[in-house]
Amino acid sequence: MDRPAIAPRMEEDSLGTRLLPDNLAYGIQTARAVDNFSISGRTIADIEGFVPAIVTIKQAAARANLRTGGLEPAIAEAIEKAAAEYSAKIRRADFPVDIYHGGGGTAANMNVNEVLANRASEILTGRKGADPVHPNTHVNMGQSTNDVIPSAMKMTVGGQLAALRAEMNGLVDALLVKEKAFSNIVKLARTCLQDALPITLGQQFSGYSAAFERQIADIRMLEESCLALPLGATAVGTCFGASAEYRTAVFQELSGVTGKSYRAEHNLFDALQNADHWIHVSSALKATAVTLSKFSADLRLMSSGPRAGFAEIVLPAVQPGSSIMPGKVNPVMPEMMMQVAFRVIGNDATVTRAAEGELDLNVWESIILEAVSESIRLMRRAIPLFVQSCVAGIEVNVARCLTDASGSLALSTALASIYDYPTASAVAKHAAAHGLSIRDASVAHGLMNAEEADLLFGDTSAFTDPKRTEQLIARFREMRRS
Amino acid sequence: MDRPAIAPRMEEDSLGTRLLPDNLAYGIQTARAVDNFSISGRTIADIEGFVPAIVTIKQAAARANLRTGGLEPAIAEAIEKAAAEYSAKIRRADFPVDIYHGGGGTAANMNVNEVLANRASEILTGRKGADPVHPNTHVNMGQSTNDVIPSAMKMTVGGQLAALRAEMNGLVDALLVKEKAFSNIVKLARTCLQDALPITLGQQFSGYSAAFERQIADIRMLEESCLALPLGATAVGTCFGASAEYRTAVFQELSGVTGKSYRAEHNLFDALQNADHWIHVSSALKATAVTLSKFSADLRLMSSGPRAGFAEIVLPAVQPGSSIMPGKVNPVMPEMMMQVAFRVIGNDATVTRAAEGELDLNVWESIILEAVSESIRLMRRAIPLFVQSCVAGIEVNVARCLTDASGSLALSTALASIYDYPTASAVAKHAAAHGLSIRDASVAHGLMNAEEADLLFGDTSAFTDPKRTEQLIARFREMRRS
Amino acid sequence: MDRPAIAPRMEEDSLGTRLLPDNLAYGIQTARAVDNFSISGRTIADIEGFVPAIVTIKQAAARANLRTGGLEPAIAEAIEKAAAEYSAKIRRADFPVDIYHGGGGTAANMNVNEVLANRASEILTGRKGADPVHPNTHVNMGQSTNDVIPSAMKMTVGGQLAALRAEMNGLVDALLVKEKAFSNIVKLARTCLQDALPITLGQQFSGYSAAFERQIADIRMLEESCLALPLGATAVGTCFGASAEYRTAVFQELSGVTGKSYRAEHNLFDALQNADHWIHVSSALKATAVTLSKFSADLRLMSSGPRAGFAEIVLPAVQPGSSIMPGKVNPVMPEMMMQVAFRVIGNDATVTRAAEGELDLNVWESIILEAVSESIRLMRRAIPLFVQSCVAGIEVNVARCLTDASGSLALSTALASIYDYPTASAVAKHAAAHGLSIRDASVAHGLMNAEEADLLFGDTSAFTDPKRTEQLIARFREMRRS
Amino acid sequence: MDRPAIAPRMEEDSLGTRLLPDNLAYGIQTARAVDNFSISGRTIADIEGFVPAIVTIKQAAARANLRTGGLEPAIAEAIEKAAAEYSAKIRRADFPVDIYHGGGGTAANMNVNEVLANRASEILTGRKGADPVHPNTHVNMGQSTNDVIPSAMKMTVGGQLAALRAEMNGLVDALLVKEKAFSNIVKLARTCLQDALPITLGQQFSGYSAAFERQIADIRMLEESCLALPLGATAVGTCFGASAEYRTAVFQELSGVTGKSYRAEHNLFDALQNADHWIHVSSALKATAVTLSKFSADLRLMSSGPRAGFAEIVLPAVQPGSSIMPGKVNPVMPEMMMQVAFRVIGNDATVTRAAEGELDLNVWESIILEAVSESIRLMRRAIPLFVQSCVAGIEVNVARCLTDASGSLALSTALASIYDYPTASAVAKHAAAHGLSIRDASVAHGLMNAEEADLLFGDTSAFTDPKRTEQLIARFREMRRS
Repeated sequence: MDRPAIAPRMEEDSLGTRLLPDNLAYGIQTARAVDNFSISGRTIADIEGFVPAIVTIKQAAARANLRTGGLEPAIAEAIEKAAAEYSAKIRRADFPVDIYHGGGGTAANMNVNEVLANRASEILTGRKGADPVHPNTHVNMGQSTNDVIPSAMKMTVGGQLAALRAEMNGLVDALLVKEKAFSNIVKLARTCLQDALPITLGQQFSGYSAAFERQIADIRMLEESCLALPLGATAVGTCFGASAEYRTAVFQELSGVTGKSYRAEHNLFDALQNADHWIHVSSALKATAVTLSKFSADLRLMSSGPRAGFAEIVLPAVQPGSSIMPGKVNPVMPEMMMQVAFRVIGNDATVTRAAEGELDLNVWESIILEAVSESIRLMRRAIPLFVQSCVAGIEVNVARCLTDASGSLALSTALASIYDYPTASAVAKHAAAHGLSIRDASVAHGLMNAEEADLLFGDTSAFTDPKRTEQLIARFREMRRS
Repeated sequence: MDRPAIAPRMEEDSLGTRLLPDNLAYGIQTARAVDNFSISGRTIADIEGFVPAIVTIKQAAARANLRTGGLEPAIAEAIEKAAAEYSAKIRRADFPVDIYHGGGGTAANMNVNEVLANRASEILTGRKGADPVHPNTHVNMGQSTNDVIPSAMKMTVGGQLAALRAEMNGLVDALLVKEKAFSNIVKLARTCLQDALPITLGQQFSGYSAAFERQIADIRMLEESCLALPLGATAVGTCFGASAEYRTAVFQELSGVTGKSYRAEHNLFDALQNADHWIHVSSALKATAVTLSKFSADLRLMSSGPRAGFAEIVLPAVQPGSSIMPGKVNPVMPEMMMQVAFRVIGNDATVTRAAEGELDLNVWESIILEAVSESIRLMRRAIPLFVQSCVAGIEVNVARCLTDASGSLALSTALASIYDYPTASAVAKHAAAHGLSIRDASVAHGLMNAEEADLLFGDTSAFTDPKRTEQLIARFREMRRS
Repeated sequence: MDRPAIAPRMEEDSLGTRLLPDNLAYGIQTARAVDNFSISGRTIADIEGFVPAIVTIKQAAARANLRTGGLEPAIAEAIEKAAAEYSAKIRRADFPVDIYHGGGGTAANMNVNEVLANRASEILTGRKGADPVHPNTHVNMGQSTNDVIPSAMKMTVGGQLAALRAEMNGLVDALLVKEKAFSNIVKLARTCLQDALPITLGQQFSGYSAAFERQIADIRMLEESCLALPLGATAVGTCFGASAEYRTAVFQELSGVTGKSYRAEHNLFDALQNADHWIHVSSALKATAVTLSKFSADLRLMSSGPRAGFAEIVLPAVQPGSSIMPGKVNPVMPEMMMQVAFRVIGNDATVTRAAEGELDLNVWESIILEAVSESIRLMRRAIPLFVQSCVAGIEVNVARCLTDASGSLALSTALASIYDYPTASAVAKHAAAHGLSIRDASVAHGLMNAEEADLLFGDTSAFTDPKRTEQLIARFREMRRS
Repeated sequence: MDRPAIAPRMEEDSLGTRLLPDNLAYGIQTARAVDNFSISGRTIADIEGFVPAIVTIKQAAARANLRTGGLEPAIAEAIEKAAAEYSAKIRRADFPVDIYHGGGGTAANMNVNEVLANRASEILTGRKGADPVHPNTHVNMGQSTNDVIPSAMKMTVGGQLAALRAEMNGLVDALLVKEKAFSNIVKLARTCLQDALPITLGQQFSGYSAAFERQIADIRMLEESCLALPLGATAVGTCFGASAEYRTAVFQELSGVTGKSYRAEHNLFDALQNADHWIHVSSALKATAVTLSKFSADLRLMSSGPRAGFAEIVLPAVQPGSSIMPGKVNPVMPEMMMQVAFRVIGNDATVTRAAEGELDLNVWESIILEAVSESIRLMRRAIPLFVQSCVAGIEVNVARCLTDASGSLALSTALASIYDYPTASAVAKHAAAHGLSIRDASVAHGLMNAEEADLLFGDTSAFTDPKRTEQLIARFREMRRS
């Protein structure tokens, strides 16, 4: 950079001094962290909501310290004002700490402390720097990285989960539309990939929407659990340097600023020692991902063909499917979704390993945050595309579905209900050997005449509803008796 | 086997016939499954509670079918009686199906159907066999493998979880005893494995017990979710062959037999399609395992030594530690616990993969059950040994703990609260460079006189309690002013 | 146990004394380990080849210590004789240490030391006990758990891998038979589950056999790497207590006893510190498992139906497929195989975690051994059943295969080669819209006359061989020109 | 964008037409892919070497098609020229396809086809567009996505692995320097975290370098395996549309352009069906990562303190360690490294799942490439920072190391060698109970006099070398005898 003219600024920390270009929003510790950790290309600013959460904590802490006498009004107000400015807009370049940083988040916390101290000093004096507002003494007052970062993580992920939930609601809405539209389409259910009993496509889709609704409820519960923060624990859970008054005030202020009902964790030592909360979060994301993957795989199977597959449904054609085979169209949207799921599964393995901390603090929070946030982000972004370019446009090959359902050897199950399992089994065997339908084999086997067979097997849809099945069997028995 | 005399029994299924020794409790389909799958040495009988759960379902179904007119009284009562006998005692040899069996549990379900049909026929006629009580037509009436097996799995795992919870309560009790005993022992907290602020050992242990209490609550919630069963869904969720009356009755009977409030799943299609419930179960087990592993690793660290390590605590010596180094003693109980945790982590990877089913049924339930049950079983058995031979006997090197806490450079944090961060930092630097305590460096640095230093740093335990810290700092400021 | 009469034996170790029934083959340390660790129901004797490997090391060490003057001849010979007896037959009850034991294998090593010392003393004196042959002083001479156990693990797993390889060879043989039998069966290849170009079923099966052959070669390489042992490293890699002469002699004796060319590890510190070797072993097993799973899933897909699926092949019917649906048959053998694969994947996660040791020794070897051995054992046992009851009996629906191949819209690829991609694309679109074959659409589109179309599309098998395709296209071009 | 003036370009594919801004380098299919898949923020251009590899394949294919008569010279040369231009410089904006795209890489392949066709047409006519050079007909001639993309992946990752290996060599170099510098520093080895026998720090470091050297050799082998490409397999392995001459020529041209000896895969069906190769690559990366993590964790342990930990070594202070505790310094570089390892472990889980494809093609290649590339990239970038800011600057607390080694109770092992295990055990017990050194306890126990004890225990370093130990014990025995 040949930025001229601006006199550099001398900064100092416990390791020494360093000249920094004065236009840098951050300070010496952040500069060291940039030197130490720039490996991934992803910074703390790339985690949606993370820097804003830390900034918000600083703002609430400044207010609380003002109220409880820790900070002079001028300084508290300058910090608050700086925080408010940054809450409004985060410049990526001001928060350059790589997400892969050691030290349990110290670099992230100090990055925000330095930026706010510089800005607050500037507000008061026109000059950046640690005087009169010091990043540790003032901005970080009553706090430690060890309570600020886990608190900010929960605030961040709580918000991300809510956004994911919104997209999942969109998916459920689309599925409910399909469930209704498909409620009269009879098709073949398959277990072990083998022909089984009839089902309606609407019933099948009700299974998908019910699963995602369950998961939405799970995610909502996790959002709630993200409201419990270890703020006030400071370095090791003993609240050293954070008075009881401050600890009450900071939660009041935080809830005031954010409009959310944050509360203190039940046991602060536990909250700093253990990161198993993130296993639950990651696992709920994994459960969602696995369900998305299963649903996507089902769509691929049901749309397999167009000629030599199941060919029950047709997915919207969104791009040509082959560079060499003209006219081929692939289920690219489900395939995108499945790859997202595979990544979420991998992220869970990362979270699992990182959740195993040691002694009084889990210091692997950065990678946990990166992994969890990525899982959420990918699903958030993929789901609406998936809905719009795939789910919403599913069409059905109604005739094929009906033919498959009507031809299934598993319709012999009705015979087992009426006669017994061995009789039904013999008819199914006969049908298989001679390429007959169960209807025709029932007649051929002498179990019933053609009229009775037409009654029993004439409308396969009856078998998708236990009440209608019962009525049908009752009518069949009556006809037999008469 | 040269068992003579007993005439073999001819059995038949849809694939053909087979002669079986008449003393075999099971029938032809089980015999086929034994041929097909004997690979692991572990059978369905080895999963604690699984065969009893299936038997109980059969009993409840027989009662429900009797009430709703599906079964004649004699047959229903014979099935019930047979089921009651087997509920009282499961002979391993009667249920030889390998836990790794394909087909979504058909072999497991048929194994129980055949055993109960044989026994019921024997009760009625003195002879085993499918006449008059048929395994499919009668014992399996109103049921399918696809609703029976997932239901039995939830019943099984629900019971196992309760047993695990009991052991975890024992661990928490032991921890609470230690928490109390250690409440006045001041030691050094460590973050990033570096000397941090003082904490009491009791505070540290309160973090452990709080974590396990949280997990006990999670497990209890999962037990509750295991009460929702897909019973009545039959093959594909449409309830084909299970009347509405039967479906009501079977839950009443099941609750009657077991004393538990089982209920039908909300959406039966979802219940058969998706196995993500088991991701939640497995993940809660993993969260517990990771916490056990972290706690165990902490015990290893804190007891490292006996001379050249942290040497804060001493674990009970339960066996010699080396074949070559006389007198060595190792933390073998935490190491056993950690290996259990590593297995639970692996089981979660298995469950994750298996939870991804396809179309109308997840057919990987057997391996899910094996993995989840193993995780529970290992923790259930390891925890009480761990408590008894390790946790309960932890002793403390009180002097070492205090010395370490008093010597920490992080006591400079108190100076940062009183003066400011740069001042405290300078003192810490000075102390490090000259091998001084923070107390001595504070005096050497001219921040305070010896008397003031003694007040401030004389009782490190004050720093483990924010109220006492505040009072101390207040007294210090007073002394300074006076 | 009310075993009377035999006077118990008093044993002593560094922690104290203990009375043991005199008929116990093992001693006090083993008895302590049984108390401490009985959690899994699986003991070191259940790991095929493990106790024999340790016994063999003891035998070789006794010989080497005799040669290099460490042991008196009488004692050495008694140990040798005891080892030879146990090599011939391992009684499970004599080696009761749970596979989950802490301490890096000390209990396993001491179990063998004690059993051999007892038996050697008995040979010399008629009485069990540590006198005149002591488990540590004599049987363990020149050794430490830390070199014996990792060495025994590699010997054990090397042998297990060879046995797995033998079964994989059987699978490849079965596949080669099928490849040949299927070499002229034309079917449709599918990519993204969508209809693609023709292939022969033999070509497809050649892909399976080639994959398993690759993996056989990988496994053979790992067997070779299992010949490098850290024997002689003793406790921490410095060879304390193991002279250079002994270290040479013990490898000579070990190779003499076993007939295998064992060699010392390159760097003994590395060998004790790091367990990443097992990641490679586990990963090769996982690669095999994933390929088995993929092959099994393909068999399920290709045999889906029997009517409403791909229905290209028919797997042998080995058991009825449903308790409720008569006549249903499921692909149970591939499903068993897939569940094995899911377990192997989980075991790899366990190995990964356990491979991360600390400082001078990885102490998680027991769980690594358990996980790796289980993966091998399950595949070893499942593969021959899978071959015999599934792969060997695969039958083909030749007509369906040909119909599907001939009807594929991807045959338009031939048009792209002859004309260009947009022209071919237009024909494919026309064929799709009007339900025509590519042959008929080519004529309808005016690209060629019926005779030319018959030449080009009359024998789909030509498209499975690039030379035949070229010749066909050349003949087609000639016919067009003429 | 309000780019005026340039008339948009009408493009067409099999799904329809679309107007594109004429300055876009890519075409209609890429535009569709951008609409469908923009979820991750990472594109194919972000994978180092990937787009260049595809471009290079296109260049080689154009040359091969020219040689074998498939392409007219003018078109071939235009494609070559375009490819050469793009090989020189890839503009990220020209390759906007998200790395998460379905369809097995069609979008990536078509993106390059379209860019090169546009540029080649422009070279020939001054105008972009599919005329005269068509992306499918000409640029993709003799190719399919299904052979191009897996080939490009192997080329890409082969290059990335070489770059990683270079950084690992740097790490090994740094370790060898330390190994030498530490060769005379005696310290305590620890097993199960308990005090064990003396070792030199150099010996310990030789274990680290030996491990990384092994892994370097493994990676080199994988680079070699990345030279085997499925190029020429086209869509399903049958080489449809790729003549034998072309298939020979394209490898010659590719090797000519790249200078690397690429070769065809052994079985092309296998190569398209199976992705287990990537399990091996990912596993080797995981083995490296786990070893890096273990080494990093060791550095954290050994530098724990500065006062109340092991305090054997001091890591360079690269940034302040706490926002609240002045003077604290954390092992941030090892902690960065460990988090990288946790990510690599997660990526392996993703690769494992994605390696399980289906039928004739694995379509999950994009996510495999993303995961493997990220693992390599993170380690490549982290290792040199780790070396420079941590490993190279490690300093040793020599006195502490020696004290710890000399005070270990495990020195009793020497007594076991000279006397026997029970005697040594008794001395160790005595030493522990009375807080004595093994030297002093040996004298107190009456085993030897002071002079003898000084000989035996005077220079602990002797115990780090078996020859010196032997000599020492021989001298001791001599002294005893005299």
